[in-house]
Amino acid sequence: MQFDIAMTDELLATTRAVRKRLDLDRAVPRDVILECLELAVQAPTGSNTQGWRWLVIDDAAQRAALATLYRKAASIYLNQANDAAQARGDRQTERVYDSAMWLMDNLEKVPVHLIPCIEGRPPANAPAAMLAGLYGSIFPAVWSFQLALRARGLGSALTTLHLVHEQEAAALLGLPDNILQVALLPVAYTRGTDFKRAARPPVSNITHWNRW
Amino acid sequence: MQFDIAMTDELLATTRAVRKRLDLDRAVPRDVILECLELAVQAPTGSNTQGWRWLVIDDAAQRAALATLYRKAASIYLNQANDAAQARGDRQTERVYDSAMWLMDNLEKVPVHLIPCIEGRPPANAPAAMLAGLYGSIFPAVWSFQLALRARGLGSALTTLHLVHEQEAAALLGLPDNILQVALLPVAYTRGTDFKRAARPPVSNITHWNRW
Repeated sequence: MQFDIAMTDELLATTRAVRKRLDLDRAVPRDVILECLELAVQAPTGSNTQGWRWLVIDDAAQRAALATLYRKAASIYLNQANDAAQARGDRQTERVYDSAMWLMDNLEKVPVHLIPCIEGRPPANAPAAMLAGLYGSIFPAVWSFQLALRARGLGSALTTLHLVHEQEAAALLGLPDNILQVALLPVAYTRGTDFKRAARPPVSNITHWNRW
Repeated sequence: MQFDIAMTDELLATTRAVRKRLDLDRAVPRDVILECLELAVQAPTGSNTQGWRWLVIDDAAQRAALATLYRKAASIYLNQANDAAQARGDRQTERVYDSAMWLMDNLEKVPVHLIPCIEGRPPANAPAAMLAGLYGSIFPAVWSFQLALRARGLGSALTTLHLVHEQEAAALLGLPDNILQVALLPVAYTRGTDFKRAARPPVSNITHWNRW
């Protein structure tokens, strides 16, 4: 297949973290989630381990319990971080926090939560090579899932704050000890699909050729 | 933009880890790398930190030095791992190791090495929430870079073995202490572009609804 670069670039450039524009009133069929997961697991993994495991939460009581855990961590963190962004006058990041606070208040209403996991919990003081190999074997698949959602008119956001209470979440979900949660993604159809590129400094500022 | 789902799915499903089909004889213009990095940095990051930093190595001597470090780690690991895959009769993984050994032998000949980095080294015993937030703020961008390459007829593979000798690599590249390397990607045009979906077990086997 010859790719239409304008289209594939648009997909990569406009898959934003979506929070306020998640449509809380439209149900997400399980088939759509499975279709996007089938694409996600096409991503490569270190040593072909394919250690991904997916928890999909669409039960209202489970979502409410996760939202409570999320809020417990987020309410402290987000207010502090938002104050810091305001103090530095960073408007883009202020908007991110404003959106994150909306999510904190509405997480249980988002129709689906996805918790991507990976088999194999790293030991304390795991070396950098091991951590990169582990997280590098799950986040590409998670991002593919998010891109596949975008192409279908859905949105999501990668959040990690519930991991502050990882053990409580694991108990709630009945996870075995060797299964490591890496994120929580609220998933829903989006209100509109006209997402734009983000303003970014030129990459030449942060790219080094051959040496730092 | 209305996405052509057949095309975006094809991109997500056929961006393989490419090693043996990297074209060692075709130069990669710096502009192509920068174009793909511009797309990479459209990915979201935790708290909008945008901590990514990119080391692009196209100098032959630097590539040779990195390849030496890579081989020092890989020669031990890959032979052991390949023996284990053979013992379990896992043919797909055997092919991965065969390809990985080819890369080990030819890494310095691949025209471009990309080392994605992120600002902020996690402390020893960093909690899961911090590690997920850190690696989850760089690997989506790295995967976007790989997808952008694929759309343009180039390929890459996410490798982490050189991180076994992270400090030596950091010295070679002149990296500041607070900059964390997360991978090394050989990058080249591919010989042909007819990459296929990988065989995967059905995701229903590894998907849990509401509880494990």
